Amino acid sequence: MSHTDLDLTLDGPALTAALVDIPSVSGDEKPLADAVERALRALPHLRVDRHGNNVVARTDLGRAERVVLAGHIDTVPIAGNVPSRLDADGVLWGCGTSDMKSGVAVQLRIAATVPAPNRDLTFVFYDNEEVAADLNGLGHVAAAHPEWLAGDFAVLLEPSDGEVEGGCQGTLRVRLRLAGERAHSARSWMGSNAIHGAAAVLARLAAYEPRRPVIDGLEYREGLNAVRIEGGVAGNVIPDECVVTVNYRYAPDRSEAEAVAHVREVFADCGIDGFEVDDHSGAALPGLSHPAARAFMEAVGGTARPKFGWTDVSRFSALGVPAVNYGPGDALYAHKRDEHVRVERITHCEERLREWLTA
Amino acid sequence: MSHTDLDLTLDGPALTAALVDIPSVSGDEKPLADAVERALRALPHLRVDRHGNNVVARTDLGRAERVVLAGHIDTVPIAGNVPSRLDADGVLWGCGTSDMKSGVAVQLRIAATVPAPNRDLTFVFYDNEEVAADLNGLGHVAAAHPEWLAGDFAVLLEPSDGEVEGGCQGTLRVRLRLAGERAHSARSWMGSNAIHGAAAVLARLAAYEPRRPVIDGLEYREGLNAVRIEGGVAGNVIPDECVVTVNYRYAPDRSEAEAVAHVREVFADCGIDGFEVDDHSGAALPGLSHPAARAFMEAVGGTARPKFGWTDVSRFSALGVPAVNYGPGDALYAHKRDEHVRVERITHCEERLREWLTA
Repeated sequence: MSHTDLDLTLDGPALTAALVDIPSVSGDEKPLADAVERALRALPHLRVDRHGNNVVARTDLGRAERVVLAGHIDTVPIAGNVPSRLDADGVLWGCGTSDMKSGVAVQLRIAATVPAPNRDLTFVFYDNEEVAADLNGLGHVAAAHPEWLAGDFAVLLEPSDGEVEGGCQGTLRVRLRLAGERAHSARSWMGSNAIHGAAAVLARLAAYEPRRPVIDGLEYREGLNAVRIEGGVAGNVIPDECVVTVNYRYAPDRSEAEAVAHVREVFADCGIDGFEVDDHSGAALPGLSHPAARAFMEAVGGTARPKFGWTDVSRFSALGVPAVNYGPGDALYAHKRDEHVRVERITHCEERLREWLTA
Repeated sequence: MSHTDLDLTLDGPALTAALVDIPSVSGDEKPLADAVERALRALPHLRVDRHGNNVVARTDLGRAERVVLAGHIDTVPIAGNVPSRLDADGVLWGCGTSDMKSGVAVQLRIAATVPAPNRDLTFVFYDNEEVAADLNGLGHVAAAHPEWLAGDFAVLLEPSDGEVEGGCQGTLRVRLRLAGERAHSARSWMGSNAIHGAAAVLARLAAYEPRRPVIDGLEYREGLNAVRIEGGVAGNVIPDECVVTVNYRYAPDRSEAEAVAHVREVFADCGIDGFEVDDHSGAALPGLSHPAARAFMEAVGGTARPKFGWTDVSRFSALGVPAVNYGPGDALYAHKRDEHVRVERITHCEERLREWLTA
C-alpha cells in the first residue's frame, strides 16, 4: 500500500500544508496516524507507543519536570477546502489549517528539532475529537494507558488565537420534569397543567444571578440557562408533562458533585417531579500557579484568559495534570468552509515553545 | 350497482342496527347518503334536497315555527365492531351505535311517522363531522344553501346521555411567541434566552382565574390553558424562540372578537413578540329562553346542562338558530372499540320528540 511520508525538516507552515493534504476526517484518521507514527519512529530520542489511531511519543531524559504537548489529528468533514492553498498574503487555507493541523505541525517540529529539552516531553496525537465524547482518542488513551499521559503540565495546541487560555468551565445538563394530569381542555378543571407547573422554574432561571469567580487571576463567567422546553399532548388536551432542560456552565472551583448539588438547590422549591442528569463534563483548573506553567507564561508572553467553553484540557485536569490551550489557529474560523491560518502565527508559536523548552 | 334499502317501518333500535351495518367512515358516506335519500324520497310529505353526501328533507305546512333535527352520518374508523350486535340485555354494540347512528335512526323514524307535525320540520343528514372542520358537511350546506337550514330552533341528536345540553363553549387557540437572541451557552451573556422570556406568560396562566358565567340558567366554566410549549435549538445554544400555545375555552356570552381581545389583554404586559390565532370556533348560546326551546324542554323533561366542549350547535348559532344537543347515545363510549347504546334510550328519545312535535 502506498503512503505519504511526512518530512519533519519542512518549516511549520509547509508541514501544516502537508498535514492538511492527508485527509483525516473523524473516523478516517488511519493514514495520517500511520504517517505521524512513521515520522516519530525515525527520531532516536523518542519512545513511540500507539493505541488505535492514537500515537504517543516521549523523551526519557530524567528531567525534573515533564510537559505534555497534545493535539487531535482529526478534522470536521471536508467542505471543498482540501488540498490546502497558500496565498500571497501569507495565509494558508484549507480544512484543519486552524483546527488544528497547524498545532499538530508545531508539535511535530518540536519533536524533531528539540532532542534535548530542559523538561521531559510527551507528544500526544489523538483521534475523534470532533465527534461524540465517548469516541475521543484522548479519553481512550487515558482509560487504557493513563501512564502515557503523566506529566506536570500540559499544553493543548487547540486554536486559541495565539493567546493562552487557562483551564475550562464545566458543563452540566439536567432535565427538570414537571408532572400534571391529563384532561380534555374543555374541562380543564378535571386535570392539572404541567406546563403551568413550569412557571416557577422559568421565573427562577430569569432571576438567576451567575457567579464570576476569579481563579489564578482569571475571571470566569458562569451561566444557568434553559436550552430546551417541551410540553403538550394535543391542541385540546391539558398536558401531563413538561420538561425543561437546563445547562449549567460552571467555573473550575466547583467539582462535578458540587455543580449538581447547586442546580438541585436552585430549583429545590419549584415543585420539580424529576431531576435527571443528561450530560456532564467537569471543569478544569487553569493551573497557572504551577512553576512549569509560570515559566510557560513568561516564555510565550501575553496575558492568560479564561476558557469559557469545555475542551480536552478537562481530561488532563481529571488525570491531575494542569493544562492550558495555546495554539496558532484562529478559533473563529474553525469548522468553516473558509478555515485558514496566518503562517507567521505558526512560526511564532513554534519559536515561543522552543524558547521555553530550551532556555 | 347493488344497494341496501332502509326500511323506515323498523323500530328505532332495529333501524339503528341497519344503519350501523352500512359502513360510513368519514369520506366514505356515499352508500349511506344514497340509502337515506332514497328512503326519504319515498315519503310524499317531504321535499328532499341533496348537496354532495348531505341530504336535507323538509315539510312545508305553513306552521308558525320551524324546527331542525340534525345529525351526521359518518363515523370514526371501524375497529372490528361492524356489523352491529344486539345482546340479551338490550344493548346494541357497534361502530356508530352511540355517535350517532342511533340519533340518525330517531330522525328517520320521526320523518317517517310524523307526517303532520305541529311545527314545520327540517331533517339534516351530513357528512365528515369526525374530521377536519373545513370538510364538515353542515358547514358546506350552510355556505352553499343557508336557506335549507333556516329555523327557529335546532336539535342535534349527538350523544348526550339522554340529557339536554344547551349551547356550547367556544374554543380559541393562540400561539404566543417570545423572541430572544442565539448564543453559545458557554457565553450566555452574549445572547438573550427566549425560554426565560416565557416565565411571565406561564406565571400569568398559573394565576388565571377562569369565569363561571350563568347564561339561560346554565353555569358555564371557562378555562385558559397552555396546551403546548416549544423552545430550544441544541444542548449548547441559548434559544432565540419559545412558543406557548394557549387554548381559551369560553362561555357563549362572548363573541369571537371579544374572546381574542380577552386573551390579548391577559398577556398584554408579558413581553409577547408574536400573537397568532391558530384555530377558532365560536361559542353558541343555549337559546333555552326561546318558546320552541321551552316547549321542547317541557316535553323531554330533565334539567338542561351546559355543553363545555365545542359542537356543531355553534354552526346553527352562527346562522341565528338557537340549538341544543339531545340524543340517545352515551358520549362516554363514542370513538371507542366497545361503543354501544342501550336500546330503550333510542325508543325513549323517539317518543319524547314525537310527543313534543304532535302535542
